[in-house]
Amino acid sequence: MSRAALPGFRDFYPQELAERAYVMNAWREVARRYGFLEYDGPPLEPLELYTAKSGDEIVGQLYVFEDKGGRKVALRPEMTPTFARMVGARLNALRKPVRWFSTPQLFRYERQQKGRLREHFQLNVDIVGESDVAADAELLALAIDVMREVGLTASDVRARVSDRRLIGALLAHFDISEEQQPLVYAALDKLDREPRSVLEKRLTDGGLAPHTVGSLFEAVAAKNLDELRVRLGGVRAMDEHFDNLRRYFELLGSLGVAEWVQLDLSVVRGLAYYTGIVFELFDTAGEFRAICGGGRYDDLLATLGGTAAPALGFGMGDVVLSELLRSRKLMPALQPAIDYWVASDDEALLPDVMFVAGRLRRHGHSVEYSLKAQQLARQLKAAASAGAAQVVILLRDQWSGGAGTATLKNLADGSERVVRGDELFNIPV
Amino acid sequence: MSRAALPGFRDFYPQELAERAYVMNAWREVARRYGFLEYDGPPLEPLELYTAKSGDEIVGQLYVFEDKGGRKVALRPEMTPTFARMVGARLNALRKPVRWFSTPQLFRYERQQKGRLREHFQLNVDIVGESDVAADAELLALAIDVMREVGLTASDVRARVSDRRLIGALLAHFDISEEQQPLVYAALDKLDREPRSVLEKRLTDGGLAPHTVGSLFEAVAAKNLDELRVRLGGVRAMDEHFDNLRRYFELLGSLGVAEWVQLDLSVVRGLAYYTGIVFELFDTAGEFRAICGGGRYDDLLATLGGTAAPALGFGMGDVVLSELLRSRKLMPALQPAIDYWVASDDEALLPDVMFVAGRLRRHGHSVEYSLKAQQLARQLKAAASAGAAQVVILLRDQWSGGAGTATLKNLADGSERVVRGDELFNIPV
Repeated sequence: MSRAALPGFRDFYPQELAERAYVMNAWREVARRYGFLEYDGPPLEPLELYTAKSGDEIVGQLYVFEDKGGRKVALRPEMTPTFARMVGARLNALRKPVRWFSTPQLFRYERQQKGRLREHFQLNVDIVGESDVAADAELLALAIDVMREVGLTASDVRARVSDRRLIGALLAHFDISEEQQPLVYAALDKLDREPRSVLEKRLTDGGLAPHTVGSLFEAVAAKNLDELRVRLGGVRAMDEHFDNLRRYFELLGSLGVAEWVQLDLSVVRGLAYYTGIVFELFDTAGEFRAICGGGRYDDLLATLGGTAAPALGFGMGDVVLSELLRSRKLMPALQPAIDYWVASDDEALLPDVMFVAGRLRRHGHSVEYSLKAQQLARQLKAAASAGAAQVVILLRDQWSGGAGTATLKNLADGSERVVRGDELFNIPV
Repeated sequence: MSRAALPGFRDFYPQELAERAYVMNAWREVARRYGFLEYDGPPLEPLELYTAKSGDEIVGQLYVFEDKGGRKVALRPEMTPTFARMVGARLNALRKPVRWFSTPQLFRYERQQKGRLREHFQLNVDIVGESDVAADAELLALAIDVMREVGLTASDVRARVSDRRLIGALLAHFDISEEQQPLVYAALDKLDREPRSVLEKRLTDGGLAPHTVGSLFEAVAAKNLDELRVRLGGVRAMDEHFDNLRRYFELLGSLGVAEWVQLDLSVVRGLAYYTGIVFELFDTAGEFRAICGGGRYDDLLATLGGTAAPALGFGMGDVVLSELLRSRKLMPALQPAIDYWVASDDEALLPDVMFVAGRLRRHGHSVEYSLKAQQLARQLKAAASAGAAQVVILLRDQWSGGAGTATLKNLADGSERVVRGDELFNIPV
């Protein structure tokens, strides 16, 4: 028998499961506070669901096969197509705006990246049916509140924000043609990873005038809207986008997350996908990949064959966030913990031990006991390693010897007291 | 774009997700009370993990394919092989007995059964490292307590219990040869679905003497141990198994679940798999398939190439249990519910609305508000359909007109009161 999981797949032993549950519970708790409803879809979907959005080139990254009914199917690499399918099928009947979230496990087969995971869990949060920038602010605030919920602060994590429409107007302002735009976006996307001189050369090689490239890089280096406006020297055509972004930042301030957010026009993300404000969450130390990315994708639902509707959303994976939490000592360790262990000094009392255990469980307590005859000392050791808060000890002489009492031992401080049997079951949960 | 999930796969809209979460939360809560730790493994595993346990014939029922690395892989059809692999890899280091549970989604491609689901979620509970029958009682009590947790009673659900070793001794007592045993087990398995005369004929056609078949069917019809002992007229060779089962029933009584359990020697389950006590949970009305099945499988870990260790476990799917709950009106409906809706009669107050929403969320409340300008009456309607308990109303004249107060409206009884802004945020969570 193979003793290992497939490469890129994780076994979640109780410790790892507890860490995963910690992150996913934080996701659910924050989504609940924002009034979002949870949904889920199948982990296996028709392949065309993904090629319709991303083209045939995505097939190379998917777990894809033909099922026994001759259907081309794929393990889901992302949740948005499933979300779009489900919302699209019932858009008229759903309360608008749709505020939904999901926490699917996603799968990618990336051949070249050995050692990298081929599955992860991802919080997906989406809003459909609202074009107001208040929805953009609400979405980013939710992502930031997840950071708060797991103990991270604005000095650990920063949200970088851009606006696809503002960038578009900027490129138009610099007379950069439609054909040259993909080259420019690719350069912007690499601004924090490659030397500016290399990127400048790539753009001038691509036909852009050197002074255009210089002015463009000058503009996108702006750290806030006022700076950007000054660097552009007042461009009327962009006022609409300035106003929109200014209101966005104002509303983020209202929601109490302003200190986490900064303008960063080098944030690009999916080119064919996003249509408005986009954002990424990063650790400020720059140690990890993006924690989260998302934005407005007003055209996608129509592209996927559904009804057109304004929409926005983000995805936040469990892997980078968990790495960050571990590196900041914010990931809680699994502490096995039960309320009671029931022990006895007489194996003939096992039915009584199980009776007590059953009654305590009926009261909502978590309870264990030795499933086989063991010395009392070994039972107490087992109780300690199970993390029992208290041990109920049935001693032959006390319990069945007439007194009908048990000893209750507190494992934290070692204190003991004698309790009547019926008292045991009246302890509030 | 395809508007439907693959045949046999479920979309979980918020209502269906809430039902799934209700069942899975009950699973987790009861497992926690019994001191079990949660684990998980990959949904995709090497194919050999399943063929090693079940032989090559299982391939016909699996979602199986070759991945891009040339590995034969399968979507997991059951959890036990993954559990055995994970426990086997760390058996020495784990606290014994191992008490683990998991709630995986499982997949089977069954070509012939159109309309039947090809995925489901399943609670898996296993104990490794304990041969005492107390472990068998603990395991069944946990399954029964899940029934209690979701509101079912002993008049809704019954546990049918058999013992593979007792049956083996019974067949030996009747001089039924090794070769004839599979035929006999198959007949036992069909006792509640086919006429006894048909099954008798099948066995006599298979070479069993008519009087043997009669005595056998007489014996397995026994509804408890005393009845069985009487029907067999005292067979020494079976005393050990009687004692074992008697202790099992006694301990189930101690754990408080005796009324749910009955002896039923027609319960067979996986032939090559189980080695001791086996059980199934059924609805007493006989409307549904088995809710749960499991038992002792002491040989499996060694068979799968690991260290030999006594083991037992059960699987309980979400589909049958959910159908039963719905039919008994025990499945709660999703009631959208949030603590607060924040509304205003002036769209210029949106930043204030969002400030109040953000503060209330910081206090742990769930909060929504209109993301775009809307008449107050429409906002109140939206609040009601979101299930808001209370609406905070910021009225221009009250809030920013100097008084700095808001109106708090209780949607359940329609009552209103005026509160100061700072009071709003001191409401206990």
